[in-house]
Amino acid sequence: MSSTIGEKIRVSIFGQSHGEAIGAVVDGLQAGEKIDEEALAAFMARRAPGKVLSTARREQDRVRILSGLAHGVTCGAPLALVIENTDQHSADYDLLRRLPRPGHADYPAHVKWQGMNDVRGGGHFSARLTAPLCAVGGILMQIYERRGIFIGAHLASVCGVKDTPFDPMNVTADDFALCASRYPAVMNQAAGEEMMRAVAALQQQGNSGGGVVECAVLGLPVGLGSPIFDGLENRIAKAVFGIPAVKGIEFGEGFSAAGMTGFENNDPYTVRDGRIELLSNHAGGILGGLSNGAPLVFRAAFKPTPSIAAEQRTVDLKTMEPANLRVGGRHDPCVALRAVPCVEAACAVALCDEIL
Amino acid sequence: MSSTIGEKIRVSIFGQSHGEAIGAVVDGLQAGEKIDEEALAAFMARRAPGKVLSTARREQDRVRILSGLAHGVTCGAPLALVIENTDQHSADYDLLRRLPRPGHADYPAHVKWQGMNDVRGGGHFSARLTAPLCAVGGILMQIYERRGIFIGAHLASVCGVKDTPFDPMNVTADDFALCASRYPAVMNQAAGEEMMRAVAALQQQGNSGGGVVECAVLGLPVGLGSPIFDGLENRIAKAVFGIPAVKGIEFGEGFSAAGMTGFENNDPYTVRDGRIELLSNHAGGILGGLSNGAPLVFRAAFKPTPSIAAEQRTVDLKTMEPANLRVGGRHDPCVALRAVPCVEAACAVALCDEIL
Amino acid sequence: MSSTIGEKIRVSIFGQSHGEAIGAVVDGLQAGEKIDEEALAAFMARRAPGKVLSTARREQDRVRILSGLAHGVTCGAPLALVIENTDQHSADYDLLRRLPRPGHADYPAHVKWQGMNDVRGGGHFSARLTAPLCAVGGILMQIYERRGIFIGAHLASVCGVKDTPFDPMNVTADDFALCASRYPAVMNQAAGEEMMRAVAALQQQGNSGGGVVECAVLGLPVGLGSPIFDGLENRIAKAVFGIPAVKGIEFGEGFSAAGMTGFENNDPYTVRDGRIELLSNHAGGILGGLSNGAPLVFRAAFKPTPSIAAEQRTVDLKTMEPANLRVGGRHDPCVALRAVPCVEAACAVALCDEIL
Amino acid sequence: MSSTIGEKIRVSIFGQSHGEAIGAVVDGLQAGEKIDEEALAAFMARRAPGKVLSTARREQDRVRILSGLAHGVTCGAPLALVIENTDQHSADYDLLRRLPRPGHADYPAHVKWQGMNDVRGGGHFSARLTAPLCAVGGILMQIYERRGIFIGAHLASVCGVKDTPFDPMNVTADDFALCASRYPAVMNQAAGEEMMRAVAALQQQGNSGGGVVECAVLGLPVGLGSPIFDGLENRIAKAVFGIPAVKGIEFGEGFSAAGMTGFENNDPYTVRDGRIELLSNHAGGILGGLSNGAPLVFRAAFKPTPSIAAEQRTVDLKTMEPANLRVGGRHDPCVALRAVPCVEAACAVALCDEIL
Repeated sequence: MSSTIGEKIRVSIFGQSHGEAIGAVVDGLQAGEKIDEEALAAFMARRAPGKVLSTARREQDRVRILSGLAHGVTCGAPLALVIENTDQHSADYDLLRRLPRPGHADYPAHVKWQGMNDVRGGGHFSARLTAPLCAVGGILMQIYERRGIFIGAHLASVCGVKDTPFDPMNVTADDFALCASRYPAVMNQAAGEEMMRAVAALQQQGNSGGGVVECAVLGLPVGLGSPIFDGLENRIAKAVFGIPAVKGIEFGEGFSAAGMTGFENNDPYTVRDGRIELLSNHAGGILGGLSNGAPLVFRAAFKPTPSIAAEQRTVDLKTMEPANLRVGGRHDPCVALRAVPCVEAACAVALCDEIL
Repeated sequence: MSSTIGEKIRVSIFGQSHGEAIGAVVDGLQAGEKIDEEALAAFMARRAPGKVLSTARREQDRVRILSGLAHGVTCGAPLALVIENTDQHSADYDLLRRLPRPGHADYPAHVKWQGMNDVRGGGHFSARLTAPLCAVGGILMQIYERRGIFIGAHLASVCGVKDTPFDPMNVTADDFALCASRYPAVMNQAAGEEMMRAVAALQQQGNSGGGVVECAVLGLPVGLGSPIFDGLENRIAKAVFGIPAVKGIEFGEGFSAAGMTGFENNDPYTVRDGRIELLSNHAGGILGGLSNGAPLVFRAAFKPTPSIAAEQRTVDLKTMEPANLRVGGRHDPCVALRAVPCVEAACAVALCDEIL
Repeated sequence: MSSTIGEKIRVSIFGQSHGEAIGAVVDGLQAGEKIDEEALAAFMARRAPGKVLSTARREQDRVRILSGLAHGVTCGAPLALVIENTDQHSADYDLLRRLPRPGHADYPAHVKWQGMNDVRGGGHFSARLTAPLCAVGGILMQIYERRGIFIGAHLASVCGVKDTPFDPMNVTADDFALCASRYPAVMNQAAGEEMMRAVAALQQQGNSGGGVVECAVLGLPVGLGSPIFDGLENRIAKAVFGIPAVKGIEFGEGFSAAGMTGFENNDPYTVRDGRIELLSNHAGGILGGLSNGAPLVFRAAFKPTPSIAAEQRTVDLKTMEPANLRVGGRHDPCVALRAVPCVEAACAVALCDEIL
Repeated sequence: MSSTIGEKIRVSIFGQSHGEAIGAVVDGLQAGEKIDEEALAAFMARRAPGKVLSTARREQDRVRILSGLAHGVTCGAPLALVIENTDQHSADYDLLRRLPRPGHADYPAHVKWQGMNDVRGGGHFSARLTAPLCAVGGILMQIYERRGIFIGAHLASVCGVKDTPFDPMNVTADDFALCASRYPAVMNQAAGEEMMRAVAALQQQGNSGGGVVECAVLGLPVGLGSPIFDGLENRIAKAVFGIPAVKGIEFGEGFSAAGMTGFENNDPYTVRDGRIELLSNHAGGILGGLSNGAPLVFRAAFKPTPSIAAEQRTVDLKTMEPANLRVGGRHDPCVALRAVPCVEAACAVALCDEIL
């Protein structure tokens, strides 16, 4: 258990922020799927550090495929992916073994592993582990697109600044491409600019901000998913909470549905050109855990980056005395900004047992 | 996959709303755990139908334990639980094979299983399947309580009417007992009465309402959980989305955290009587997927009951023509009301691989 | 873990020899499969007690299907099967909590579960638990036969008396039907009679005997199975060792292959009517864990029944003094005799993730 | 499924014989376990090619640990191990895409993966994949030894030449060390020399031989294992059949038990110095799938190496005409010789969910 997900197709993620390398193994992919390494690099670049308002850590995040291919095509053997860590500054983190950072896993991980955990950069809990998640998700998305299934996401809000939401009835793959081409990934460019100003202002105060990522899936056949514990909501939630800093997820109307009436929230059916269609999409494309033919839509809430420069109260684990801490190192002032492809990737990973 | 959850301890739920019986198998429970069948019956009664503003279906929901016990104590063999269905009125549902109900799994289940699915009462998708979930959860909660771990929930809101929230720093097992003793399960009795009036008003209009259930766990040791895909958030989300009508889940500040700053949202540490404590609980007791010693707090959003008496548009699957539908049968006008013990039970099931 | 097997399709077996009921849940079966309950009863009858030279315990072993069907056809929901225990004589077993029977799980189970295990009839370790295994296997075999896949077995040897082995190149479904129609299940009726005489002679001495069951599968498509840990050999071995008393398994030439040369043991290919065929079948139809188109053939070794009337040395767990024991109760003098359908059923269960 | 094993601790093996690298990920190991890389290299050397009567392929099989350690000690994060392939001669294998080798997975793998499988050296089916298995097993054995649990194996027979068997009552860790220090790994040096002569004679004829490996485990606590499908026999069988060329496995008396009487085969108990002991060990230390305190003993049968220089009949998959084949390349004339540490490693992997 822990860093492995899936049954038919098993994804196993490994690595620590400041270890030698991070990566993933994908066991169970069918043979004959071409992997476009250039397109994968472009997908990885959307998550990679080194952008405006992101950590100054420089990582190329080149994905090296150790196994699973023959002549550039999957051969039925497990796919093994490795990304070398090349720009670790572990000296920044020496005090952290004693002073757990508020909002990070430092303290509970220290207790869980009796002080043996790798504290450098958060170790296995680091958001850097979303790089192999993106590598796997990026490959799966290539395979899905050949089957007419598209996944895309954007920043629904950052520091309270809202983007135009996806239209749950009419969102398109072009919307996905547009958002993927922008940083930050937004539908409305002006909103994106305002988001960046808000984040920059917080950073200058030694503070940080949060955001919400909205994600959609197009082209799913009707009836995908399974009842009770393996519905699409269960699967996607399990995978998306694998991204550090996610604190909530909702599908379709989500929490708003709790305040609606049945008549408002139900999505009626109609027939158009001999095909059954929905007249609204409050359910986010999922009923009883199964895809219903409408776009699948969900949102994930990201808390503000816990690593902040401002002084915070903590405890010295050695002396068991209160202490103060300013988190040094190089940190994103808003993890949501780079999390957009991570949400797409987590969604891709969540769906692979059902699609493939 | 599908109706099975857990790795070390596997819970497998079976049954259809109008089949002979529903039930569950729990494989992997340790030996030596006493099961108090009277306390279990009391827990089941909190979920059982037949209350004010609930379906008129009468089911005793007596849990018969077929195996797994010797002399009233678990013996290491799998626990098998059966609840007979005694009050099915399947005639109500005959048209449903042709006319899928908006907001239900009928249509995607029809496609998934090529029309072979059991449509009576929603079959395996029915909220009736939360009865075996509660049976398993109720048993687990007895075992947890002996270890000092308590789970409790209440209605945070119904039809927009809000209850007093749990205090995330100071919620107690007494709060849980208070809410469990009330129907609806609320902290503030006046709020509960207003909720019932709001639901009754919707029911008279042939309509229905939704709600939010807030759940907390006390007494978890620090460091429970696992990184990435098996954190407490992933596990709880996977289980809670197993309850029909749940459309969102959030931990601690959840979606609100997306609008907070890092300085506001981080929970600083202090030392009190030689023990590490948190000065706030915005994280809902979870950091990096691990318990941090504060109360674990989450909320689940329930959509309004999709079965409503008002006329709705649908499609005749036989003729592929548009059709209108009034859903007959006996339905709760607000599923959230009876869902409180279900959320506690799902949380108990989610945690068993970590606690036991 | 423990009494659950399978990933795509999960089979979970429950019950104790002298509990209220035993049974199984099968989660993941596709919809639309008819279950012939009469044919299932006939399959169960091959295993049922009450035969010549078997325990005098009378159990009808009627399989009651609690869920998973709609109109006699699987509906996509988990299948739940229950068999009531009706003829328990637990008084026979009272001393067993103190005096562990040699050759049984009594002593290690006592240690594992700190004396909380159900000792009556061996509890969850009893060969009676092969009844639900047979119920599941019998249902799967009905489904397989519609796909042209047949499983059959016979007694290769009992107490050293050998039956004519299956011809690994030319075994047929008629051979299976012939063996299934006989008790004991043999190709050569005279061998069967000699087996029964040998077992009767041992029983009269208060002793017991062992045997080998040979099983074959016809009609498997080429390429079924998976590399390394989920090959057909791994899967079948894991399931067949789930039958009490099995102490060995071998595929094709098995242990004999260790003494052969590569030239003798390799199975050359040829082309016949445009189809690839093997010129011999030393591999038992499996190469690299994958089916190769030849009949799948394996043998399972059953130790002699450990419950014998003759006096044996044991230990009193209460006084920690040596003690003597004569095992009373009603026991088969050779468990292999009734194990033939169990091996077929275990094989069917092992293959379901690959076939369905 | 396929190249992943374990539930609590998940081992995932990747790589192809002639790919860039092979390796494994181990998820779920507890923190604080020191890994002695020198001892691991010594264990790997027992399996490594380049010995007398083994393939001429030169591989150092140095295990590079990419993650899971902090300061040489496990840190709770998944362990990722990589072994580079450095001496591939793929030109040897070009014809194999057309001419499947008898006794290899070539043909069924071609069908399973529609000709997309990596045929070079057998790809993912190669015995080379036992290198990462040994790396994982070698690490686990270091951890077990600190808990007083020892695993050892020897060649029970090669080409019909028999070694002195382990004494099932009195085998010691010194016996294991002796066998591990010898190549071939035998108790009786003279038998080992005769084995080598027999193998050499077969090799000169362009032929190959098989063998049986006997393995024992000392120090297991009583009551390890689980009933029905997760007994020690099921787990060990599932893992050991993951080694290419294994065609049979038996525990204790195994197939011989089928010809014994209950009185002969049962292991009586006695009390010695206040501890319960067995007076014989026909069961191989396992009753009802649980360890009983006696040494765990099993044997695995290895078929003769299928790659032989002598001409064999096969089929040209392109023309669908019969063809003849002489397998070139560099092959072990008896895979059993180098398989001894692989059996130990597979056993170690099989037990980790129960021991750790």
